[in-house]
Amino acid sequence: MTIFSMLYLPELREMLAESDSEGLREFCTALHPARTAEFMEGLTAAEAWQVLQHADPETREEIFSYFDPDKQLEILETQDRTQMAELVAELASDDRVDLLHEADDGLVAELLPLLPAEDRRDILRLKSYPEGVAGAVMTSDIAKLDENLPVREALNELTRQAEELETIYYLYVVDETDHLRGVVSTRQLLSAISKPETRLRDLMETDMAVVNVMDDQEEVARKVAKFDLLAIPVVDDEFRLLGIITHDDVIDVMREEATEDAHLSAGVQPLDESYLKTPLITLSRKRGMWLTILFVTALFTAFALQHYEQDTKKYAWLVMFIPLVISAGGNSGTQSATLVITALARGDVKLTDWVRVIRREWVMGLLLGGFLALIGFTAAMVLNRNWLSATVVATTLVLVVLAGTLVGSILPLIFRRLGWDPALMSNPFVTGIIDIMGIVIYMNVAIALILLIGDTPPVDVPPAP
Amino acid sequence: MTIFSMLYLPELREMLAESDSEGLREFCTALHPARTAEFMEGLTAAEAWQVLQHADPETREEIFSYFDPDKQLEILETQDRTQMAELVAELASDDRVDLLHEADDGLVAELLPLLPAEDRRDILRLKSYPEGVAGAVMTSDIAKLDENLPVREALNELTRQAEELETIYYLYVVDETDHLRGVVSTRQLLSAISKPETRLRDLMETDMAVVNVMDDQEEVARKVAKFDLLAIPVVDDEFRLLGIITHDDVIDVMREEATEDAHLSAGVQPLDESYLKTPLITLSRKRGMWLTILFVTALFTAFALQHYEQDTKKYAWLVMFIPLVISAGGNSGTQSATLVITALARGDVKLTDWVRVIRREWVMGLLLGGFLALIGFTAAMVLNRNWLSATVVATTLVLVVLAGTLVGSILPLIFRRLGWDPALMSNPFVTGIIDIMGIVIYMNVAIALILLIGDTPPVDVPPAP
Repeated sequence: MTIFSMLYLPELREMLAESDSEGLREFCTALHPARTAEFMEGLTAAEAWQVLQHADPETREEIFSYFDPDKQLEILETQDRTQMAELVAELASDDRVDLLHEADDGLVAELLPLLPAEDRRDILRLKSYPEGVAGAVMTSDIAKLDENLPVREALNELTRQAEELETIYYLYVVDETDHLRGVVSTRQLLSAISKPETRLRDLMETDMAVVNVMDDQEEVARKVAKFDLLAIPVVDDEFRLLGIITHDDVIDVMREEATEDAHLSAGVQPLDESYLKTPLITLSRKRGMWLTILFVTALFTAFALQHYEQDTKKYAWLVMFIPLVISAGGNSGTQSATLVITALARGDVKLTDWVRVIRREWVMGLLLGGFLALIGFTAAMVLNRNWLSATVVATTLVLVVLAGTLVGSILPLIFRRLGWDPALMSNPFVTGIIDIMGIVIYMNVAIALILLIGDTPPVDVPPAP
Repeated sequence: MTIFSMLYLPELREMLAESDSEGLREFCTALHPARTAEFMEGLTAAEAWQVLQHADPETREEIFSYFDPDKQLEILETQDRTQMAELVAELASDDRVDLLHEADDGLVAELLPLLPAEDRRDILRLKSYPEGVAGAVMTSDIAKLDENLPVREALNELTRQAEELETIYYLYVVDETDHLRGVVSTRQLLSAISKPETRLRDLMETDMAVVNVMDDQEEVARKVAKFDLLAIPVVDDEFRLLGIITHDDVIDVMREEATEDAHLSAGVQPLDESYLKTPLITLSRKRGMWLTILFVTALFTAFALQHYEQDTKKYAWLVMFIPLVISAGGNSGTQSATLVITALARGDVKLTDWVRVIRREWVMGLLLGGFLALIGFTAAMVLNRNWLSATVVATTLVLVVLAGTLVGSILPLIFRRLGWDPALMSNPFVTGIIDIMGIVIYMNVAIALILLIGDTPPVDVPPAP
């Protein structure tokens, strides 16, 4: 695809140079708008806008909406204001709000007065919702119909609106003051075509999924997924219909949330732009903040080791296994935390399941810890040829892995109980806590076993030369 | 919602005991099937099936399809075979294949002969696709229409099929041997209602997104998201139309993939069932495998430290900061790896961007490492009151954090270049590699600086008593 688009670029530029209207018009309409936009990737903003001049307004708006946000913004900033106002008026109501959010306030102030009053009001209203709530994702282009309309007229109305609306697959039925009363799918309407006098009131579903305009976008995605919807209506506190959120926006929300969760779990404050476009100074702030918190937590490992300095001096072999035991604990803790976090997010585990979760992780910790202890015991015998160190390492591994699975599973449950997002930093936090616990457990096991069985010399090792 | 469903349960049981047909029929149809299914959560499989007897076959199938997979399977296994065959025949073609995948082979062998020949063939064909490819997710219930059909007849056909098909929002246009020729949306059909003699051939889009039946389900999700589709057609190598994948299945695929990626990045082999339902023995295998690999990698830290045993014996303060410096490297490495992995998955970063990525991470490493070095220097002065140790810790932190950002960003790029999934284990691997590099860097910096400036005594510390 990329190669094709590069080959096509010179031809496109030639058509532009020759002002080949017919060729350019055909180019704009021959392909799916998403693909046309892809072919135009290599053009400058000015060239791209020049090409779009040859498309009808509707196609122009469609292709434009598939450009990447940076090119959209550049066109908006550099091209003729009046034309831009016309374009903005054509764009889907949610897309244009996203675009104007990116533009600087001066430009927005210049464009708004050029728009029809209705569009202007719509933009100002949608812009007022905070990011991440239903209101900021919804579109206000909806088919609202009166509950007393008969099927025949509803079909006519649908046909009339088919070209303008973002989705025509649900018709929302409202009373005279815009309160949502029910929903009729195009499918139901088509099935009722033989009874054209039926009123929407008698056809509509009244038990429908809705979201409040201030609901979190994650909640929106969860409901749409649960009820297999194409679109979900957005209402205010009085159940007045304000807009809808369509399946494609839900998919975008899900992609965004998945990325955010991944970043948070690695200790990166979610980025507003893509990785390559985020300025280095922003990136260093978003990473540095958590890195510092984690570093300060990790400082306690140094305090802990200082506390045991006499022991590590006396038994030098103790040092060798410090990173090994704490990494084993950290890894098992991360596993447990991730399993519990994803299960909570999917609704597979509820807070009331906490006893079951802890019981499972208890068994898991003993099993996994026991297995690693076997390997650790063997490794310590090979490295150190010393029963004492091998016993210390093996015992510590069981306890540290167990601590990992328990802390890793309990921490997200506590976070959720406190109303925090369990994804928030659980993984690095778990590792930080386990690092410190690992050192304390290791040292205490060592001291206890040395007291119990005494410091034994290495097994059949020849004296140093 | 949960409280409501518990309150409702006794009433439902009472209606069952009294065989209150009318009440039960109303219960089945009053709500959205997803919600009805939710109300029935507390019922046993036998009770649930008894309730569904009072719904018409279509509603019965719809409510059943919203039960959780375990209850579906239990009903299938325990209830009357003939009734189960009827139910299976009614289910959407992709849902029933999922269900039969879970059932044991004996039961499937009993049910298949009771099904109409066409359904049987369809099930056997869909069951043959490996998990995770388009063929395994698609449904074969599609509206296929002839390219010569006029709009009027297409609308009649659509109305006729509206009740049976999973989605009626796209009509697929095929030739006489089922090769996909184009697609017409219901919206286009409705817009053309004024010209009822137009043939589909002249209305259809021929440039459309399709997927091959063996394409990975992640590719399917990417295409549907990119082109904002409600459904995507699935074709074989000869472009014959085999089925479609609808938006709700794409949302399910995305949820599944997000969970899988999260698990992989924490070193857990993805689970086939939910966390609480996975047997402990399976869970310990899926976790133990990676935990062992990581443990064996971590063993090298013990080898490395053994190598430096004389140094840690001589300069005991070195031990104190070992976990601190390796955790700083691990955390910065995990940040970089996660940023690059998510950017690769979203298409924000391509392999050809590797120079830019490394340049950014190079600057990032110096900035973040420098900042942590400042804190580390102060902490070492407080803890150890020794210029040498503070200088060693600070220098090491810069280098280790830099190593973290570089390894963390390069490893996923290499994985992608080799055709592996970058999510696969990058995070724990990065931490493992950085643990070892961290120790080697720390020890060498210490040795070099001790040689250079000599082992200095603690700053103004009274002699030990």
